[in-house]
Amino acid sequence: MNYITEYNELKKLTEDNLGRFLFISEDKYIHTLTESMAYSVFAGGKRLRPVLLLASCKMCGGTVEKALPFACAIEYIHTYSLIHDDLPAMDDDDLRRGKPTNHTVFGEACAILAGDGLLNRAYEVMLKAVCDEKNSSDANRLAKAALYISEAAGHGGMVGGQIADLEGENPDLHSLERLEFIHLNKTGALIKAAVIAGALIGGAGDARLSAIEDFGLKLGLAFQICDDILDIVGNEEELGKPIGSDDKNGKLTYPSMIGLDKSQETYRKIHEAAVNALAPFGAEANFLRETAENLYKRVK
Amino acid sequence: MNYITEYNELKKLTEDNLGRFLFISEDKYIHTLTESMAYSVFAGGKRLRPVLLLASCKMCGGTVEKALPFACAIEYIHTYSLIHDDLPAMDDDDLRRGKPTNHTVFGEACAILAGDGLLNRAYEVMLKAVCDEKNSSDANRLAKAALYISEAAGHGGMVGGQIADLEGENPDLHSLERLEFIHLNKTGALIKAAVIAGALIGGAGDARLSAIEDFGLKLGLAFQICDDILDIVGNEEELGKPIGSDDKNGKLTYPSMIGLDKSQETYRKIHEAAVNALAPFGAEANFLRETAENLYKRVK
Repeated sequence: MNYITEYNELKKLTEDNLGRFLFISEDKYIHTLTESMAYSVFAGGKRLRPVLLLASCKMCGGTVEKALPFACAIEYIHTYSLIHDDLPAMDDDDLRRGKPTNHTVFGEACAILAGDGLLNRAYEVMLKAVCDEKNSSDANRLAKAALYISEAAGHGGMVGGQIADLEGENPDLHSLERLEFIHLNKTGALIKAAVIAGALIGGAGDARLSAIEDFGLKLGLAFQICDDILDIVGNEEELGKPIGSDDKNGKLTYPSMIGLDKSQETYRKIHEAAVNALAPFGAEANFLRETAENLYKRVK
Repeated sequence: MNYITEYNELKKLTEDNLGRFLFISEDKYIHTLTESMAYSVFAGGKRLRPVLLLASCKMCGGTVEKALPFACAIEYIHTYSLIHDDLPAMDDDDLRRGKPTNHTVFGEACAILAGDGLLNRAYEVMLKAVCDEKNSSDANRLAKAALYISEAAGHGGMVGGQIADLEGENPDLHSLERLEFIHLNKTGALIKAAVIAGALIGGAGDARLSAIEDFGLKLGLAFQICDDILDIVGNEEELGKPIGSDDKNGKLTYPSMIGLDKSQETYRKIHEAAVNALAPFGAEANFLRETAENLYKRVK
């Protein structure tokens, strides 16, 4: 199967199940809230994190069925972070992927609660999978996958990256170290967690987990540097957002710190390191390798 | 040991551990965020939910050590809900327990993230306890306790109760059914989850769990009706907030729907049903019984 076909299959599998884990049977008094949660969950997107999680699980010998609750959970976490990031008190964005942001449609209070509800739902779904697993050693692996995702999502990961990013709009606080912290945490942590969680669910041993962790770390960092570069050289239509917005908002980015040429050079090196980390897997890692290559093609 | 001494011991045990599970070793770039999280976690409060969880675990034969991560987790969840409830887009409160609310001290963006971070941390802490538990049947019980808490906290529980409460400020939507939904979910769900989670961790069998669930449901509802009544007949100094604020904000409450006398009568009946639910436990349930009695004393 070629890469695009496989990506789209895993993406469709995720999208077919995002509703199944989200809705609850009795929602008479919370109808607007579930509508608001579903609005953002089904607002499109590449579904990169769940696809990576499912692919990593398959690569390590697991079934996609077992990984699906976790794939959907990580997408709920990603979606909640976008809803809260877009709020007036945060980045104050009216559009996301060309559609009105959650709070512009449902109001701020509902958007805050929709984010809270999605974050919480992610854990409900993962904990249900842990509780339902009959094999105790598999249950332990599922719990470890959920724990890894939780650490990546929390104040030691994504939430921490977000505060460092907001505070980093103050030029006095610009430094390459802070920038790397932001990129590793705000975006990188959840991408890394996706491949690790998939590997844990798939049954990977310590050596494989360690190689995948190395790959995930570098892919996550590469992903965000790519985003920084595309904000300068990208195509507005393809990106679904205006270019130059980072510069306008005084965001701390690789190009703003070290210039465009050096950013592309840094990106190339990190990309190569990500691909090298997959060497122990040989052809089994073709999907993850192509994910990195496809990202790289966009800016080279 | 008398009730007050035991309550204070369990409260102190919780407070001594709230920091241990909250802070992370490396917080150079997220210092303000952790400070903001800690500000609200250590802003006082009765610690009712963790105390109930620990007491319920003890009553069912478990150790407080095993229950502590869950006790702290449920307090983080309670705290996050207060931070988000107080936001300008929600209840817009400047004071909480006589101290400036989180967003008035740290700003809205940081308060949103502090809430997100606390909610997430609750799951990190519980998942860590599940992963570290060597006995697989105990690990399953811990996972079930975490699942129960997650369902109570989510859009099928507390988050759902909050949206129904916000929308219930519209007088056209006032109904006794909605009011009961709000009380059962916004406050009741997490109180019920505290006693159930404690019982699960303590090793309770199905019959005991069912009795405790019944008690928790009624205590949770009683707790909120008590709050409604105290907003009219309470002592401002004791409550730490001005009385009459529900009426001023057009909140849907028992007194606003059925009058003060009938609210007190309803409360008395629910209180009795809560105490009756504990009958199977005999003297073992003295602590939980006294918790209900102490609440009752405040308004009768």
